[in-house]
Amino acid sequence: MEPSTNSGYSTPGKPFTRDTNYINDRIVADPEAHRAAEDYEYDTVGTLTTGLTKDAEAWPVEAGRYRLVAARACPWANRTIIVRRLLGLEDAISLGTPGPTHDENSWTFDLDPDGVDPVLGSARLQENYFKRFPNYPRGITVPAMVDIPTGQVVTNDYPQITLDFSTEWTQFHRDGAPNLLPEEHLDEMFEVIKRIFTEVNNGVYRAGFAGSQEAYEEAYDRLFTALDWLEERLTTRRFLMGEHITEADVRLFTTLVRFDPVYHGHFKSNRNKLIEFPALWGYARDLFQTPGFGDTVDFQQIKDHYYIVHHDVNPTGIVPKGPDLSQWLTAHGREELGGSPFGDGTAPGPVREAERVDPATNPLYA
Amino acid sequence: MEPSTNSGYSTPGKPFTRDTNYINDRIVADPEAHRAAEDYEYDTVGTLTTGLTKDAEAWPVEAGRYRLVAARACPWANRTIIVRRLLGLEDAISLGTPGPTHDENSWTFDLDPDGVDPVLGSARLQENYFKRFPNYPRGITVPAMVDIPTGQVVTNDYPQITLDFSTEWTQFHRDGAPNLLPEEHLDEMFEVIKRIFTEVNNGVYRAGFAGSQEAYEEAYDRLFTALDWLEERLTTRRFLMGEHITEADVRLFTTLVRFDPVYHGHFKSNRNKLIEFPALWGYARDLFQTPGFGDTVDFQQIKDHYYIVHHDVNPTGIVPKGPDLSQWLTAHGREELGGSPFGDGTAPGPVREAERVDPATNPLYA
Repeated sequence: MEPSTNSGYSTPGKPFTRDTNYINDRIVADPEAHRAAEDYEYDTVGTLTTGLTKDAEAWPVEAGRYRLVAARACPWANRTIIVRRLLGLEDAISLGTPGPTHDENSWTFDLDPDGVDPVLGSARLQENYFKRFPNYPRGITVPAMVDIPTGQVVTNDYPQITLDFSTEWTQFHRDGAPNLLPEEHLDEMFEVIKRIFTEVNNGVYRAGFAGSQEAYEEAYDRLFTALDWLEERLTTRRFLMGEHITEADVRLFTTLVRFDPVYHGHFKSNRNKLIEFPALWGYARDLFQTPGFGDTVDFQQIKDHYYIVHHDVNPTGIVPKGPDLSQWLTAHGREELGGSPFGDGTAPGPVREAERVDPATNPLYA
Repeated sequence: MEPSTNSGYSTPGKPFTRDTNYINDRIVADPEAHRAAEDYEYDTVGTLTTGLTKDAEAWPVEAGRYRLVAARACPWANRTIIVRRLLGLEDAISLGTPGPTHDENSWTFDLDPDGVDPVLGSARLQENYFKRFPNYPRGITVPAMVDIPTGQVVTNDYPQITLDFSTEWTQFHRDGAPNLLPEEHLDEMFEVIKRIFTEVNNGVYRAGFAGSQEAYEEAYDRLFTALDWLEERLTTRRFLMGEHITEADVRLFTTLVRFDPVYHGHFKSNRNKLIEFPALWGYARDLFQTPGFGDTVDFQQIKDHYYIVHHDVNPTGIVPKGPDLSQWLTAHGREELGGSPFGDGTAPGPVREAERVDPATNPLYA
């Protein structure tokens, strides 16, 4: 849900407020059951209800019908790339990847040959929003699930997309796909996810786009209070919910992997670097070195996005050369806490050739 | 020599070039001898010659006659505050301290009662430059030595000022003042000082004010190449020239103490933080905890200066709350390398009450 926008990101005198209006349709295994269920209120972390939000539609799960459009730069989109890979949905759902530096009004497919997504035929993701809603007035965000036959955006409801990958696309999961939503931890996991969303995932934006010193300092304090809580939690737990990776780990990882390259400097989230938190840094490296996580990360696209797009925060457009990324491959020692990332499941295989990140941008390929 | 300026700091397409024109008069023990000596070419690191640069004048050393105007925010001015204190020149040379956030044309005495320096009677340092040269056209820089009777700036030649404190003001040095210019190390010390100036002291500015990605990356590479060299040098030496502190240590310290709070993020000098260099970080803490160094540092003024004044780099004007400064007081273990900061001399006593930094801005007073 990294929106493109034609105005500034930071509004003088104002705290940062995230637009939480989305296209809330869902792609589900049994559309009728969802239509028949009671409406539910939109929730910024998603929900496991079978209901739909008011006026939303249910679309059927179908292999090859939808394209996931997800910029590697964007942390919210990065989640979907990770979950798609962990669950082995590559054959069922194809992947389109806009470049990191969208224009004023839309993410663009500038990295593709001729600047056009080879499946959707779009140069700009906005075209697919307009096919759904002519003159769609809100931000053109990623991730988005696009119906390939009509070219229409089905949903950009990022917290729900990954949950539906786990619960609605089960017939297309690979053998050995991990259970990212373990029943016995769900209640606590959604509490953890919610706090991570408000304080960390969105907390860094609140710090970086604060329009006043006061709003910034409040955001900074909330962010580091939450990181201290996570540091403590992860000192005795290998993963957020214990022994195996879950949806909560995916959501925390995409912020942590951007922390030192972007949020620490660009968003002034600089009490400490990630590498100064022993448990969080070990945890982040453990995940980075786990198939499905680090192999989705393009550090150069991440840096280019924030430092070039946020012109009002970084008007020179110069992109930092640091930090030293080789540190991501160092031994993390987290095995001592026990557990296993995939539980009863297995790790995903190698990344498909066509979906590998530029080796120059990721130390896994150095 | 932190200039105020009415234009931007970073020029698109251009590397950063420091203005190296200064008022090169000197304040010396024997003005006649200096006038009689041969001219010398201005050198960006200063020199121990008895000559004067072309058209420069020699002023006599005299207790109580001159006021050192030095903003605590500025690294070049910070040097003079440190050397004055190490040598015990507080009675001979009084200190005026402009606030951190100068206006478009001048450093201002906004921290003083009624916004006026109590000795010079100036609201803006520019007044003292104009008393010397009406319509003085260049940057109004600190540090500056001002002749109190006339209110005229005598010199703003920052590299020479600290050398002259050591060599020309000897009759006013305190008992136990250290020798910051040890004869046996001078040749090598000036080589070290020169490399530190071009690559580190000025290197961070070259990175931060680069007008192109290419110029920035070149500056970044030069900076970290030099820091790696210093890291190696300081792994086996307690101080830059060996067992005791020298002028070279003063010059490196004022950049190091600003590195993590400012240069790492604001100037994109972010391959690593200072705290990630074991020897440099131990060395920096060793100095910080030595009387005369850390007790001159006002971290809040330092951060306010860069983040508020450089509007073209940080247009929001928001000042980062980090980093965590308590780390400066941790054990550094450098005593194991032997040596003693003051050699045959002694440490300076406590900072005078009127010159103490705001305790809230320095962990030494926490």
